Amino acid sequence: MIDKTTIAAANETAESALRAEYDALGEALDRRGIDIGAVKDKVSAYGIAIPSWGVGTGGTRFARFPGTGEPAGIFDKLDDCGLIHQLTGATPRVSLHVPWDDADPADLIAKAEETGLGFDAMNSNTFQDQPDQPLSYKFGSLSHTKAEVRQQAIEHNLYCIELGRQIGSKALTIWVGDGSNFPGQSNFTKQFERYLASARDIYAGLPEDWRLFTEHKIFEPAFYSTVVQDWGTNYLIARELGERAYCLVDLGHHAPNVNIEMIVARLIQFGKLGGFHFNDSKYGDDDLDTGAIDPYRLFLVFNELVDAAGTPGFDPAHMLDQSHNVTDPIESLMNSAMEVQRAYAQALLVNRTALAGFQEENDAMMASETLKRAFRTDVTPILAMARLEKGAAIDPLAAYRHSGYRAKVTEERPASGAGGGGIV
Amino acid sequence: MIDKTTIAAANETAESALRAEYDALGEALDRRGIDIGAVKDKVSAYGIAIPSWGVGTGGTRFARFPGTGEPAGIFDKLDDCGLIHQLTGATPRVSLHVPWDDADPADLIAKAEETGLGFDAMNSNTFQDQPDQPLSYKFGSLSHTKAEVRQQAIEHNLYCIELGRQIGSKALTIWVGDGSNFPGQSNFTKQFERYLASARDIYAGLPEDWRLFTEHKIFEPAFYSTVVQDWGTNYLIARELGERAYCLVDLGHHAPNVNIEMIVARLIQFGKLGGFHFNDSKYGDDDLDTGAIDPYRLFLVFNELVDAAGTPGFDPAHMLDQSHNVTDPIESLMNSAMEVQRAYAQALLVNRTALAGFQEENDAMMASETLKRAFRTDVTPILAMARLEKGAAIDPLAAYRHSGYRAKVTEERPASGAGGGGIV
Amino acid sequence: MIDKTTIAAANETAESALRAEYDALGEALDRRGIDIGAVKDKVSAYGIAIPSWGVGTGGTRFARFPGTGEPAGIFDKLDDCGLIHQLTGATPRVSLHVPWDDADPADLIAKAEETGLGFDAMNSNTFQDQPDQPLSYKFGSLSHTKAEVRQQAIEHNLYCIELGRQIGSKALTIWVGDGSNFPGQSNFTKQFERYLASARDIYAGLPEDWRLFTEHKIFEPAFYSTVVQDWGTNYLIARELGERAYCLVDLGHHAPNVNIEMIVARLIQFGKLGGFHFNDSKYGDDDLDTGAIDPYRLFLVFNELVDAAGTPGFDPAHMLDQSHNVTDPIESLMNSAMEVQRAYAQALLVNRTALAGFQEENDAMMASETLKRAFRTDVTPILAMARLEKGAAIDPLAAYRHSGYRAKVTEERPASGAGGGGIV
Amino acid sequence: MIDKTTIAAANETAESALRAEYDALGEALDRRGIDIGAVKDKVSAYGIAIPSWGVGTGGTRFARFPGTGEPAGIFDKLDDCGLIHQLTGATPRVSLHVPWDDADPADLIAKAEETGLGFDAMNSNTFQDQPDQPLSYKFGSLSHTKAEVRQQAIEHNLYCIELGRQIGSKALTIWVGDGSNFPGQSNFTKQFERYLASARDIYAGLPEDWRLFTEHKIFEPAFYSTVVQDWGTNYLIARELGERAYCLVDLGHHAPNVNIEMIVARLIQFGKLGGFHFNDSKYGDDDLDTGAIDPYRLFLVFNELVDAAGTPGFDPAHMLDQSHNVTDPIESLMNSAMEVQRAYAQALLVNRTALAGFQEENDAMMASETLKRAFRTDVTPILAMARLEKGAAIDPLAAYRHSGYRAKVTEERPASGAGGGGIV
Repeated sequence: MIDKTTIAAANETAESALRAEYDALGEALDRRGIDIGAVKDKVSAYGIAIPSWGVGTGGTRFARFPGTGEPAGIFDKLDDCGLIHQLTGATPRVSLHVPWDDADPADLIAKAEETGLGFDAMNSNTFQDQPDQPLSYKFGSLSHTKAEVRQQAIEHNLYCIELGRQIGSKALTIWVGDGSNFPGQSNFTKQFERYLASARDIYAGLPEDWRLFTEHKIFEPAFYSTVVQDWGTNYLIARELGERAYCLVDLGHHAPNVNIEMIVARLIQFGKLGGFHFNDSKYGDDDLDTGAIDPYRLFLVFNELVDAAGTPGFDPAHMLDQSHNVTDPIESLMNSAMEVQRAYAQALLVNRTALAGFQEENDAMMASETLKRAFRTDVTPILAMARLEKGAAIDPLAAYRHSGYRAKVTEERPASGAGGGGIV
Repeated sequence: MIDKTTIAAANETAESALRAEYDALGEALDRRGIDIGAVKDKVSAYGIAIPSWGVGTGGTRFARFPGTGEPAGIFDKLDDCGLIHQLTGATPRVSLHVPWDDADPADLIAKAEETGLGFDAMNSNTFQDQPDQPLSYKFGSLSHTKAEVRQQAIEHNLYCIELGRQIGSKALTIWVGDGSNFPGQSNFTKQFERYLASARDIYAGLPEDWRLFTEHKIFEPAFYSTVVQDWGTNYLIARELGERAYCLVDLGHHAPNVNIEMIVARLIQFGKLGGFHFNDSKYGDDDLDTGAIDPYRLFLVFNELVDAAGTPGFDPAHMLDQSHNVTDPIESLMNSAMEVQRAYAQALLVNRTALAGFQEENDAMMASETLKRAFRTDVTPILAMARLEKGAAIDPLAAYRHSGYRAKVTEERPASGAGGGGIV
Repeated sequence: MIDKTTIAAANETAESALRAEYDALGEALDRRGIDIGAVKDKVSAYGIAIPSWGVGTGGTRFARFPGTGEPAGIFDKLDDCGLIHQLTGATPRVSLHVPWDDADPADLIAKAEETGLGFDAMNSNTFQDQPDQPLSYKFGSLSHTKAEVRQQAIEHNLYCIELGRQIGSKALTIWVGDGSNFPGQSNFTKQFERYLASARDIYAGLPEDWRLFTEHKIFEPAFYSTVVQDWGTNYLIARELGERAYCLVDLGHHAPNVNIEMIVARLIQFGKLGGFHFNDSKYGDDDLDTGAIDPYRLFLVFNELVDAAGTPGFDPAHMLDQSHNVTDPIESLMNSAMEVQRAYAQALLVNRTALAGFQEENDAMMASETLKRAFRTDVTPILAMARLEKGAAIDPLAAYRHSGYRAKVTEERPASGAGGGGIV
Repeated sequence: MIDKTTIAAANETAESALRAEYDALGEALDRRGIDIGAVKDKVSAYGIAIPSWGVGTGGTRFARFPGTGEPAGIFDKLDDCGLIHQLTGATPRVSLHVPWDDADPADLIAKAEETGLGFDAMNSNTFQDQPDQPLSYKFGSLSHTKAEVRQQAIEHNLYCIELGRQIGSKALTIWVGDGSNFPGQSNFTKQFERYLASARDIYAGLPEDWRLFTEHKIFEPAFYSTVVQDWGTNYLIARELGERAYCLVDLGHHAPNVNIEMIVARLIQFGKLGGFHFNDSKYGDDDLDTGAIDPYRLFLVFNELVDAAGTPGFDPAHMLDQSHNVTDPIESLMNSAMEVQRAYAQALLVNRTALAGFQEENDAMMASETLKRAFRTDVTPILAMARLEKGAAIDPLAAYRHSGYRAKVTEERPASGAGGGGIV
């Protein structure tokens, strides 16, 4: 963590310009009938989870180019996550991935308290083989043709629940790589029946106050079919399992051209939106930084979320899920958390009464302009003021670079190799 | 129609070569444990519906280049469809599109009998405005924001049911163009609620022995969102409406790269596959001739259908739905009907016991090869023999060209204009 | 046109808020070292051409839903275009499409003077058949297998040049629909050789001070292959023809996921970027309003243009090319012209010295942020101030709606039919 | 290698059925005016290169699930490749990847002679960092902003040439991962200028009788832009470098929906088709087995190749490039080599005189059918007879499984780990 006075000193320099821009924006919003303080308060209360694995450098099947000072284990990772939250005030929780982050629950809790963090959803892993694992997931896990492999995968998920229970998590996200690489390799129907049966066994072990999340993905690591290929299948899973089963949406897991915000709306309408894995993508599951490629799409997703806010039981989980191949992961995560906040703030500016009227009258031009007007508003001062007020950094990136944190951990932590996987 | 003796004469010339190739194939299949006669009988019993509008030349938003001798109305269309069935023996039913094909039921029945045809599903049209129509569908039909427009669209569908009831149809396919062209133009959730409410009103008017079909499509004519954008939404509609509501799959209505055969499997698994609009596509809803672009994909769809055959209640409707912009529509429809038969015959050759074994053992190579071996088999002699035995043409294309039918109707029918729409 | 005092009155109401926001933005930009006045002057000098056909309501192959008061011919269209320029000050030229806009050159010049407009590139049409046309383009035009069809298409293009020459145009844009719908239908190589030979004949008739533009498109109206399918082929055409031949880029004419701004950069680098047909798209050649779907992509294109500004000989043509199916075309064109200006203004704000430094040091995070910071800036006050200063409307949409222009022309002009094509 | 008598014994069992099917096919082809022996001879003379890395199990960024008996180095790999050629008679050459396959040239030559193989193109690797490498390729290699990194990458390529020269290779294929993950990260133009300058330095070191191959790819490992993103850029590289520079086409490296066979035709037309990396794909660079997903597309590519055969200087290189994640790599490579032969044999059956006539007359239906007729022909007996006659296996897959080779090498070779990369 960084010394608070360092942050305060940096903020002092930037504060007067911020106040000038915040006031100017406040006046402009006031002319539009919007109270900037109310928007700021909502932004301030917003938090997004960091995936523990996100603070390591990612890679591709071709190579991984590690950075310096990479976290060597979950406790290093929690240090990095704590810093991100300290500087942005926007990332209060960390999501663990088992077995990578497996550790003594007491130690995890202690470290979380030390770093000012809580624990988000637990993530299971049956898409890789672990060194001491009796049976291989090469041909699937929860949907494998062999009962013993499925059982091993089920038990791993139950183990994740138990660990999560002890550290205060309230959700399990199931990760699988099941699918096929050849037409004919798998019988689609039997494979899905096996998946459902396994998922039911996991669901049966879910504590009453937990939620179960499943995620759809069109391809990768399987390249002809995946067992949860799209939101249609994902919805069927959630419906088959029960009322505590929900669907996750990862922005990079869809076919080209697909209207993702509409999928979000459908899942909300049918009570099955569990949450998000935020990132951005241009081609596939590129896992680029959120908002880096198509910030308007991100805004349109938040437009649906703000529209649904207040619906009873509507409480989607928000997490970043990115692969940082060419940037310092801490920088990317800070920036992405702020991009998510930005989209949220912009969506809060939409004049929903006017929008509903234009929609009712089929005034497509004014409806479109109503969204665009909110999107065009540069809400940077609102985000920065929310940070300033909670003691975080006006400019987290600058404060981080100035802090020397990366140099420090580079000295303290062992170098990581070019192998080691580029998995996110 | 063509004189039967003309067909017989053409067949006589081709018969000996056919018998030689049929016998050689029979021997080869026998070595694989397959009875060629049993395959031929199934192919012979198979029939696919022709859409009435398919016998006219299609077009694009850029232009329509009419052919000669285009059918001027439903009775001309039935003549053309009758000929297609006469030559191929594979297209026993015609699917009508209202209001284009609206006519006195008695006349329709009489003409159908004359041409040896039956009536397949009725198709409604609320994606266009008709000259005498009080309210416009410019901003939607079943999901329009105004109740009176929705009511008009509902009543049109009920009218289609009533007409269909009188001529012996047993299904209604709902066609809409509802969607939006701008983010914000429509509230996704309210729009879908309105769609569902309207569809329920139509479903309430469905005779007990009818089925209701809805079709998903990712885009066109709407270019930002469509109200039934994918199979997930389509499934929800069918489930919400009731047990006689089913989903249609059009091969050209999906996002790029999507695994269509898997969608077919999912809809079968959850009891909601209603049937198909067959065509082929490379880019979007290209409505090209079935099997012209990716014949293996067509085979993989039929692989699912043959796999599910015999499941109680499994009875999908098969129809061609193509836009013939550069070919004689009669030729394209004949050829496409035969391509569908080809895929069906190939799928019948799959050794399903062996396949199931390879799947169970995760022998991806042999599973793939099991499908490929069936697909590679040139089943042309089986299809031709099935035609020969029912008095249809061994080579329908050659027989048609030789018949002079197009020249004859070109003399009899008025020329059609370059306008008139390119709608399929 | 609208009375100037009406515009002035509307501006008077909005002026003080505009000045407050312009000043606040000026101060913020000043802190970033940017002179707002210099940006405003560049925006003010920027103009984009309107396609004559854009002021009519577009459609799809499924239907066209006309608006009211649609222009009945080129002179009505010029009235509409004149109004757009009057209100936005951003659209000084109109691009004609022959034969739709064919008229006496003297009349065209007189009307242009009356409406305050000039003439941009001429657009030929060999993708449709005209009523009195001897030979059909059903199977192609410039690449048709028959020499006489190619000759007819060449002569049409030469006619367009001659008409353009008389009215002061300086460029020809070739429009074709050539391609194929079936594998095998066309020999790719021979077809392209014929296209090149025809294009050379047109190029030979080009006046010395003219440019020839060709445009690539992946599909539609042909659905298996198009003769100028991508920028690679488009570049080869321009290189084969000569130094006055250039490539147009239409944002909706690419395969899914393609990086369009990179294509723009490549064409600039090799001296062949001719210009743009601006619009937006989500699926195919959707021809939606510019910036409606992905405004960041539009900004990234302008980032390349601003980066290349000043390169000798670099002078791309800018035109809107949209299909307005659900909006008042005048509103869409005004708004789209402003969206293009917006992207230009944002691109002018990029700190290119800093960006070059970040690129050199592979600081991906700061390079990305440098672009995002410019994009996030709400430049609306700059655009509005530029309009105010030239006597155009601060809020063109509001001024237009208030003017009653649409109601007036609805009374004066005959209603147009639902047919008539939806071609853009 | 397998004992020849084992193969002979397996062939003996299968020979009579093969002869029956070969003769029946011969008669059927004779009726179409085709000499089966001539086709068989061309197939027999055809060979495709195996990539050395293809005999190892591939993986994804998520995991690699190794098989048993994986080759531990280039000499093991050559053993596996030799077996593939022994059984299929279709893969006479191996393509080496440096530094993975770096070894003493004399040893390589000796091993090649022992295994009956020759050496195809050399493949350089600047997309990974090697343990002892002074400078990192994290931010690019040939296009890196720093001259010293570019120089290191150039020298590596020159080293590959020198090694290749000593073992009889005649071509270098450049492999890079250069691109960017964020808009703004790289200046497209400067990056490409650097790439071209580096490539010129490599080209300058190319022996007179060598060819230089570059390959385009739309994405991965870079996810916003790649420096050789498509064939347009690839063509520009080949043209800029000189007459011995050519373009490679990998079937999985294109945007969705792109017409690859047309790209092949364009590169042939402009004299720059260097060759292929064969595989199949459904979503991205899936590197699935050739022909596994869309065999008709593969046929259409070979249709272009057969059409161009005989053109002076036309001599494309053929290589498989696949990632075998769920199959035994030896099986996949054997099968894929046969699939390529299959497409070649089918393309040889196209009646090109008839096709040219249908194209000239715009008879799209018959042109399409001419291709489909060739594609539908089950040429399996031709391929098998060609193998039988050269002492290879009638059924390579069965012979391989029967041979016990995998079990044998599993005993002899050390187990490989789950890490190690999944790179192809």
